[in-house]
This record gives sequence, C-alpha cells and structure tokens, in this order.
Amino acid sequence: MNNRTLSLLVDNTPGLLSRVAGLFTRRGYNIASITAGVTTDPRFTRITIVTEGDDDIIEQIVKQLRKLVDVIDIKVLEDATSVSRELVLVKVRVEENQRQGVISMADVFRGKIVDVAADSLIIELTGKQDKVDAFIRLLGGYEILELARTGITSLTRGSEGVLYL
Amino acid sequence: MNNRTLSLLVDNTPGLLSRVAGLFTRRGYNIASITAGVTTDPRFTRITIVTEGDDDIIEQIVKQLRKLVDVIDIKVLEDATSVSRELVLVKVRVEENQRQGVISMADVFRGKIVDVAADSLIIELTGKQDKVDAFIRLLGGYEILELARTGITSLTRGSEGVLYL
Repeated sequence: MNNRTLSLLVDNTPGLLSRVAGLFTRRGYNIASITAGVTTDPRFTRITIVTEGDDDIIEQIVKQLRKLVDVIDIKVLEDATSVSRELVLVKVRVEENQRQGVISMADVFRGKIVDVAADSLIIELTGKQDKVDAFIRLLGGYEILELARTGITSLTRGSEGVLYL
Repeated sequence: MNNRTLSLLVDNTPGLLSRVAGLFTRRGYNIASITAGVTTDPRFTRITIVTEGDDDIIEQIVKQLRKLVDVIDIKVLEDATSVSRELVLVKVRVEENQRQGVISMADVFRGKIVDVAADSLIIELTGKQDKVDAFIRLLGGYEILELARTGITSLTRGSEGVLYL
C-alpha cells in the first residue's frame, strides 16, 4: 500500500470539496491529505489528494471521481515526474539556552523563524513530505507545542499534459 | 465581509474533514480554503479553515462546529496574534530569453525553482496570502501553465492558549 497523489482540476462550485471528500469517506478510501486552491482562472480549483491503495483501488477512485459532474480532469501523479511540496508551521517551547539549538536546526533544513516569543519559536518549513517528517522527528528532543501542516500540493514536471482550457 | 481564519483541533477520525466541509456547504457558509494535517500526536488533526463573514456569522459557524463530537478545540485567529502561511507551486512557460526574468522575479520573492524543463519552470513560493497573490499577479506577463495552492495554514503566536492534551 503506497501513498498515491491525485491532482484534480474542478469547477469552482460551492460544496464540491465536501462532495469529493464525502466520496472517499462513503467508499472507505482513506484521505491522507487534501489541499485545494483556485487556479489563475477563478472558475477552476485544483485539488490535490494523497490517498492509499494499490493500482486497482486507485483506478476505482479515479473512476468514481470522474462521475462527479464538476470534475474536469484527474491525473495520478508519479514521483519521478512530479513535484510535491508541503508546508508546516511548528511551535516549539524553548528555554533561553535552547533557542540557538532550535534556530540552527531550522537553518539546516532551510526553515524560517516566523515568530519569536519569550518561551517559544514558530518555524516555517517547506519540502517533500519525508523532509518535513524528518524535521519534526529531529525536533522530538524539544517540546512541540503546536503544529499545523497544509498537506501535499503537487504539479507534474515539464509542460506535457497541461490542460489548456 | 472579511476573511476569517478558524483553527480546529479534531480527533483524527475518517470522514471528519468531509463532515466539517459539509457543514459549511449545507448552511451556505463559504470555504475560501481548508487545510488539514495530523499533529505530532497522531490521534489529532489540525484543520485550518478560511471563511468569510461578519462577527455574527463567525459566531454561528463556531457554534455549529462545536456540536461536532470530534471537534476538540476551535480558535478564531486574529491577524495581529497569528502567523498564516500558504504554499504555491506555479508552472510558467518560458522561452529561452524569458527564463532569467522569471528566475529573478522568483528570487525577489524568495521563491525556489523546483523544476526546469526545456520550455517551462516550476516555482515554489511560501508566504502570507497577499504575498502569494502579488507574485501570481506579477507573473501575469508570462503564461502560467498550471498552479497549485495549498490554502492557508495558521498558528497563534507565542505560547498562550496552547491546549495541552
């Protein structure tokens, strides 16, 4: 069971996100993450869903999604031919003597410090999911107060297969 | 009508995202963006929703969301006391003589070039929503082939109000 990433181009209609998510729930397919945002053309939204399943299950999911009237295009993205990124905000408790250690760790991962308080820091980090996971694991020596992840967004590499609307 | 950001801490139960999104749809509340990701404790997911509405509507939404059994905590985030970030991937068509111009523009916005093909580039950019919007507007002089946004994720600044589970 591998994680697979689906990229959907859909009409920007109210309730579509909940219908897409509902389809997964009703049929017992797992959503590892879902992100959505309007495209440059405000009529359309791009939804990126990470789900689990073998080829048969992915094929079924795609078939079901195609039946939704507002779904214009679906791509199953392959690691080798796509770029996937996630954003995470992590709030860490830091005592005075821990601050520099956490900042250095963020630097190594090219994270940014986006908030500094008396006893906490917020780090913004972007990367592939395994980089984000590795960073969070490394922070395990500190007390993570809060964490917010966007989930994965993805695009195919290069200009092939781009849908011109 | 301003955009307001809600930060929900919820039990990591299948279908909850679709129930939360469905609540907005049924009641006619608009979802400008929704992101979700597990926290460091895999039992919990943090959902960030950007919605539109005056204080009364936001109060109603929060009241409805509290009724969902798996919702543990809801915060209405204020700009001054929270950090909000979004990630966008933008694929731009570039002729040979346009490439350097697009790369320079990405540099100014501290974007990263994450894919280079013969006739296209993918730029990864992170920031507040208005920064992301400004960058996309500036790219208007070029042909944007594809665009994927995660939607906003947010945390309150500092360590006050953190829920210790």
